[in-house]
Amino acid sequence: MPADAMTSDYRARRDRVRTALARLDEPADAVVVTDLVNVRYLTGFTGSNGAVLIWADDAAADRICTDGRYLTQVAEQAGDLEAVIARDVLTELAVHARRVGARSIGFEADAVTVATHRSLVDRMSEEDGPSAELVGCSGLVQEFRKIKDAGEVELLRRACAIGDQGLAAIIDRGVIRAGVSEREVARALEWEMYALGADDIAFETIVAAGANSAVPHHRPTDAILADGDFVKIDFGAVVGGYHSDMTRTYVLSHAAEWQREIYELVATAQAAGRAALHPGADLRDIDAAARSIITDAGHGDHYVHGLGHGVGLEIHEAPGIGSLATGTLPCGAAVTVEPGVYLPGRGGVRIEDTLVVTSMETAGDTPDLLTATDKTFTVI
Amino acid sequence: MPADAMTSDYRARRDRVRTALARLDEPADAVVVTDLVNVRYLTGFTGSNGAVLIWADDAAADRICTDGRYLTQVAEQAGDLEAVIARDVLTELAVHARRVGARSIGFEADAVTVATHRSLVDRMSEEDGPSAELVGCSGLVQEFRKIKDAGEVELLRRACAIGDQGLAAIIDRGVIRAGVSEREVARALEWEMYALGADDIAFETIVAAGANSAVPHHRPTDAILADGDFVKIDFGAVVGGYHSDMTRTYVLSHAAEWQREIYELVATAQAAGRAALHPGADLRDIDAAARSIITDAGHGDHYVHGLGHGVGLEIHEAPGIGSLATGTLPCGAAVTVEPGVYLPGRGGVRIEDTLVVTSMETAGDTPDLLTATDKTFTVI
Repeated sequence: MPADAMTSDYRARRDRVRTALARLDEPADAVVVTDLVNVRYLTGFTGSNGAVLIWADDAAADRICTDGRYLTQVAEQAGDLEAVIARDVLTELAVHARRVGARSIGFEADAVTVATHRSLVDRMSEEDGPSAELVGCSGLVQEFRKIKDAGEVELLRRACAIGDQGLAAIIDRGVIRAGVSEREVARALEWEMYALGADDIAFETIVAAGANSAVPHHRPTDAILADGDFVKIDFGAVVGGYHSDMTRTYVLSHAAEWQREIYELVATAQAAGRAALHPGADLRDIDAAARSIITDAGHGDHYVHGLGHGVGLEIHEAPGIGSLATGTLPCGAAVTVEPGVYLPGRGGVRIEDTLVVTSMETAGDTPDLLTATDKTFTVI
Repeated sequence: MPADAMTSDYRARRDRVRTALARLDEPADAVVVTDLVNVRYLTGFTGSNGAVLIWADDAAADRICTDGRYLTQVAEQAGDLEAVIARDVLTELAVHARRVGARSIGFEADAVTVATHRSLVDRMSEEDGPSAELVGCSGLVQEFRKIKDAGEVELLRRACAIGDQGLAAIIDRGVIRAGVSEREVARALEWEMYALGADDIAFETIVAAGANSAVPHHRPTDAILADGDFVKIDFGAVVGGYHSDMTRTYVLSHAAEWQREIYELVATAQAAGRAALHPGADLRDIDAAARSIITDAGHGDHYVHGLGHGVGLEIHEAPGIGSLATGTLPCGAAVTVEPGVYLPGRGGVRIEDTLVVTSMETAGDTPDLLTATDKTFTVI
């Protein structure tokens, strides 16, 4: 993707935040965004210290702030924004905003700590000049991040393709077999994803064999895979900051009837969850579409987590899809659908895809499935 | 290490926090610790949602709180503490503490966000009963984490040994040579560390060749190593949560005189920094011991970062050793010493060790060097 296309994407994202500032319960003249994922989303800057100031009425007055370590990097990644160089990025931009006329300044109340807020208030009270009110904004940027633009979907698609190809490669090479450890499978899969061009691993790869597969978030151990085991693999790659997320569950060598039964149950529930991903659907209804199938089969107590979550610059982001969720599913959201059934001491199945919610007009109301690996019951 | 030994370590750590509560500027009856690294340090619990309540005067009333996903895990990892199961761990423990008599409750002001604090205040005002004051405590647990106990030093030692062995393995196998990419070297080194038993990589491995070596925190790219290049490698392993950190810089095939000169300069400064690691030394004096050598040689402007940092459950923790640091070096601290000289467009050298500060009585006042890899000027 050409660099200038991305520059305009970042500008468009800042413009959406700009418009939202006037519509807050307590409208703000400007906002200082300090959550580093949000800073990356709005500017492209990936350093470990940074903030961006966005004005309600004057894009030319927007500023990015980082410290001297990132002088070169900020010019390369966010050269369209004038940079302020300072270590205490929130205070610097808030004081700057007040000096040039802001009377109400937003900050991310869900990212700024009590101690940092206290030091900001102290510092602003030391300065001469007219006072400015600090306005807490929670979830301001996260709300926009729910809806992915074309560039974001392309990065998610590449990350998911690396996951598909990585898993296919270790299956082709016979890595998943009796006698190897969970850890060896995890490492081999991560190695393949790096070789395929992943910038990073999306999260600690889960490989859970036998009874361990009944633990939803089992970390891989030296436990050895054995014939007859369920092997649950939950993993992802990162490309350009965007995370893929997929789970597949296999059986080694030969399957018992109970394994086939719970696999088909989870697969049916997962298909129902995918089919419920309509733009505007209530998030609880989507969860219920899958959960009711598992509950009706008597396994409600063995399905202990939500149906899915948003995925993008973070592995878990808005919207969450679960029985306690509030709100609806926006068109353009990227989400996972991942029901599971876990039988303690015996084994468990989870099947998970990453999908983008599309509108009726563009794709016949069918979500765009980014994770293409086959989901039919498979004995390896 | 037997599990009961660790249980007593965690209990001893909580007892130190307990004692500190009465000595705060605003003394607290109890504190709710929510920073997850601090929770792990005080309890052994490694889940992604958790908090621990510590009372000033009654260890039996201490509680750990996490949500239902971690029911089994919390019993395994922190079975000596009574567990409260709830999702909103801070609010749950604070409300509990007030109900059973706390009138002042500490929280980590440097970890709790403004939004979380607001919702805690709202929730506590809804409850009947006597009021309780919330007391912000910053750095309460971090202060104790500076000083490593025997179990922690052992884990750091194992992490550092894996780093030493991993680097030796890729050098023996001829991985570091002209024609391979920075990324290939990084991946090979990480692979070796995993094979040697690392639980994780301590941070994104830095491999920087040629002119890239002049960028202090360069991320590995597809750039190809060439004869005559400096190759700077900064990396570490994690064992039991503890991070190692080491940097070595080599020259490929043949060295120029300027390379030998800046290498020897950095090595001399690094040795001076190590020699200055006396218990009780002013942190700025330690930085100056190394920095003055580089400045006197006319390269002060080419050394753009601090001398080192504490290392443990986090890769960067207290104490920081730099020209703006405050305080002194405690006996038992684990720190890095890592001066560098970076010549833009040409190349740079950094040499870094991880060491534990020991007392005169135990080791003749010489810090315990955990990273054993040779530091003499080496052409590969």
